[in-house]
Amino acid sequence: MVRNYNIALIGLGNIGSYLYNYLKKNKKLLIERNNISLTIKYVAVKNLKKKRKIKIDKKLIVKNYLDIVKKTDVDVIIELIGGADGAAKNLVFAALKNKKHVVTANKALIAKYGDQLAKIAETNKVNLEYEAAVCGGVPIIRTLKEGLLANSIKKIYGIYNGTTNFILSKMDYEKFNYKTSLKIAQSLGYAESKPDADINGSDVAAKLNILSALSFNSLVEKNNIYVEGIKNIDSDDIQYANTLGYKIKLLGIAEQINNQLYQRVHPCLVDSKSYIANISGVLNAVIIESNPVGTSIIQGEGAGPKATTSALVSDIASIARGNIKQPFMIPTNKRKKINYKSINELRFSYYLRFDVKDKFGVLSKITNILSKNKISIKRLIQNPNNLNKNASIVLVTHTSLEANMQKALKTLTNLKYVNSNPKMIRIETV
Amino acid sequence: MVRNYNIALIGLGNIGSYLYNYLKKNKKLLIERNNISLTIKYVAVKNLKKKRKIKIDKKLIVKNYLDIVKKTDVDVIIELIGGADGAAKNLVFAALKNKKHVVTANKALIAKYGDQLAKIAETNKVNLEYEAAVCGGVPIIRTLKEGLLANSIKKIYGIYNGTTNFILSKMDYEKFNYKTSLKIAQSLGYAESKPDADINGSDVAAKLNILSALSFNSLVEKNNIYVEGIKNIDSDDIQYANTLGYKIKLLGIAEQINNQLYQRVHPCLVDSKSYIANISGVLNAVIIESNPVGTSIIQGEGAGPKATTSALVSDIASIARGNIKQPFMIPTNKRKKINYKSINELRFSYYLRFDVKDKFGVLSKITNILSKNKISIKRLIQNPNNLNKNASIVLVTHTSLEANMQKALKTLTNLKYVNSNPKMIRIETV
Repeated sequence: MVRNYNIALIGLGNIGSYLYNYLKKNKKLLIERNNISLTIKYVAVKNLKKKRKIKIDKKLIVKNYLDIVKKTDVDVIIELIGGADGAAKNLVFAALKNKKHVVTANKALIAKYGDQLAKIAETNKVNLEYEAAVCGGVPIIRTLKEGLLANSIKKIYGIYNGTTNFILSKMDYEKFNYKTSLKIAQSLGYAESKPDADINGSDVAAKLNILSALSFNSLVEKNNIYVEGIKNIDSDDIQYANTLGYKIKLLGIAEQINNQLYQRVHPCLVDSKSYIANISGVLNAVIIESNPVGTSIIQGEGAGPKATTSALVSDIASIARGNIKQPFMIPTNKRKKINYKSINELRFSYYLRFDVKDKFGVLSKITNILSKNKISIKRLIQNPNNLNKNASIVLVTHTSLEANMQKALKTLTNLKYVNSNPKMIRIETV
Repeated sequence: MVRNYNIALIGLGNIGSYLYNYLKKNKKLLIERNNISLTIKYVAVKNLKKKRKIKIDKKLIVKNYLDIVKKTDVDVIIELIGGADGAAKNLVFAALKNKKHVVTANKALIAKYGDQLAKIAETNKVNLEYEAAVCGGVPIIRTLKEGLLANSIKKIYGIYNGTTNFILSKMDYEKFNYKTSLKIAQSLGYAESKPDADINGSDVAAKLNILSALSFNSLVEKNNIYVEGIKNIDSDDIQYANTLGYKIKLLGIAEQINNQLYQRVHPCLVDSKSYIANISGVLNAVIIESNPVGTSIIQGEGAGPKATTSALVSDIASIARGNIKQPFMIPTNKRKKINYKSINELRFSYYLRFDVKDKFGVLSKITNILSKNKISIKRLIQNPNNLNKNASIVLVTHTSLEANMQKALKTLTNLKYVNSNPKMIRIETV
C-alpha cells in the first residue's frame, strides 16, 4: 500500500519553481521507487502578484509562511527562502519546534545555526536534511552519512563553488582577465550580481564547515576556518602556474593531523595532471580520504535548479522512508570539542610573485628576507619587461612553515622597488 | 536507547576475517553513528581446523551454515562464501525464506538469481543488500537507490574491474606485455590464479547487469549483454593508442537510446585527456548521466577486504535503521520488460590493426573491403618492419555501423598476406 506524504514549499524562486514542476510531473516515478506518494499541500510565496513561468494551483497558496508550521496536514517543510537569518531562520526554527520535518538548501543557515537546529530536531524526533546545501546535485551528505558510514575520515577536500571555479577556468583556458571572467559568469547566471560570498571564499567556508561537522563530529557554530578568496588571483598568476605545471583552484580542505583539525579555504596550486586540476567550469568535486576504504571521489553539478532538485527530492524521499534522524549523524550533545589548529602551524611549498622595478639587487633582497625566515627557493623565473623597466619574479619555495611565510610577507610588502603586494599562493599536494 | 542487532557471518576468508575484526573494534563508532549496536552472534566457516590470522571466539562458531538461518537470535546474515551456485545460493535462498535480512558481496549470485531472491525478500519484507557486490568500496548502489533517486538515468558506464584496469595500466605506463602484467597482478593479489572471469569481461558483465537493473528497472535474469575481454589487447595496441591520443580501457556501458537498452562490455579507446582515461591501477569509477541532475561521477577502491568491509557495513547499518526494502528499488513484478538491442545496431569509430606481409597492394585490398562495407578511413599509420618484410597497418575509421564492421572483419580475417586476425577496438566518446 502506498502511503501519502504532504509537502509544504516555502519560496518559489528558480529552485522552488523547478521543484514544484518536478514533483507534479514525477509523482508516479517516485511512488515506484520510494513506495511513497509525495503531495504538495501548500506553497508560500513572498510576492503573490509576481509573474511566474509556472502555474501554481491557487488553492495551495498560503500568505503567511509561518502559518504552515502549525498545519496538521503537513509532514515536511521545504525551506527555499535563503539567507542565514530573517525569514528562513524563523521558519526552520518554528517548523522543527512544531515537529515538522525540514528539508533545506540553505548552507548559510545550517553553517550558522546547525547545532541549535539539530538539537531541536533530535529532541522532537524529526529530520533536518540539507543535501542541497552542499555541492547541489552531488550526493555528498548522504554518502558521508550512509555510503561511507563505516569509515574514519582523515581528510576531506575539493571544489565546492562553481562560480569561482568557472571564473578560474575562463581565466585559464580562454585567457580572459578576472573582471571579464566574472562578467561572463554573471551573464550566464553562474554568478550573482553581488558575488562577494562566492568570490571571498565564505560560500566555500560554509560548505566546508558542514562537511567537517559530518566528517569529524565537530560543531558548526564553534568552527574555525582560515578563509581566503580568489580576488587577488590575476591572469599572470594563472599563466605562471601553467608554466610551472600547475592549475589554480579554490579548495576547501579539512584534515586531521595528530588529532588536531586544520580547516582552510584558499586558492591552491595543484599539479596540472591531478584529478582536481581537471575539474573545470561549474562542476563540484569532493575527495574523501578515509579508513578503511581509502580515497573516494564524488563529482557532479554543484548548483542550479536541476541539481538542487535532485538533492531536495533525495532528502524528502529519505524522510518519507523514515531514514536517519540525527542531522549530523551523531547526536549534537555527543559531538566532540575539536582542537582547531591555525594554518600557521602547517607547512607548504609556496608560489610567490613579485612585480618589481628592474634594479640591481632586488632579487638578492627578496631571497635574503626569505632566507632569514627559513624559506629556501626551489625554482625561480625572472621575466624582465623592457618597455617599462619592470620585471616579474616568480618563486617556488621548498616546504616552509606558514608562520614564517607570513612574517616574511610582512617585510616583503614594504620593500623598496617592489611595485605592489607580493602574491602568495600555497601549493597543495593532491 | 541503543538497540542491538545480531549478525551471523558466513565465510571467513580475507574479507570475512577483516569484517570480523572491524566489527569487534568499531562497535562504539557504529553505535554513535547509527544508534544501533551490531553484535556478531554466529560465525560459520568451512574448515574449522584451518589456521587463521585472527582469533575467533569459539562459542560463536557453527558447523553447518544452514543451521543459522533458523536461529531466532539472528537478524542479518552476511554471505561471504562466493560463487553463483552451491553453498552461497543455498544459504541466501534459505535465509530470505526464513525472513532473515541478507547482506552479500556476491555479484555472481545477484546477477544470476537476483530477481528470484528479490521476490522472496519483498514477500517476506526483509532486505537483500549487495553494495559490496559492485565496485567494492564505491557506494554506487546506495547512490543509485538514494542519492540520485530523483533522476531518470540515460547512461551508466565506467571501470568496474580493478584486475583488468591494473593490467592495462601496467602495459601502458610500464611497457610490460600482457603476460607479465597479469603475473604482476597475480603476485600482488590483484588477480586470482584463475583470472578468467576478470580477463574475459564476465565479472564486469555481472556488475553491469546489476547496475543496469537499478538504472533501467530491468530484470537481471533476462539480461542481454555483449561481452568482450582484454585477452587480445597487446602492447602494440596500447602504444598505437597512445600515438593516436587514446588510452585503452575495459568499460561496462548501459545506455538507453530511443527507449531501447544497449548493454556492452568491451575494451574501448577513450580520449587520453578524458576523466575515465586517467583512472589507473585497481581503482573503479562509475559515471552516470541522468535527468535532471546531469553527469555524476563516483570513484574509489574497487576491491579488497577494506573496501568491501566499508560496503558491507554500510548495508548492515542501513538494514538496522529499517531503510529501503526493495532490493532493486522498485518491486520485481513492476520491473519492466526491456527491449534489448544488439550492439550490431550501434555506430562506432573503430581502431583497426593489421599485421601484414609488406607486399604491394595489401593496403588497397584492406581499404577496398572496408569501403565495400561502407566503412571509410579517417587516419592511417603504416609502419614497415624492414627486418622481416612485415608491416603494421593501423587505421581509425569514420563512424560506421557495427554490423558492417563485423561483416568486413570476416572477409579481412581470411585475407592473403594478413598474418593474423585483424585487431578491432571500438572508440568510445566519453
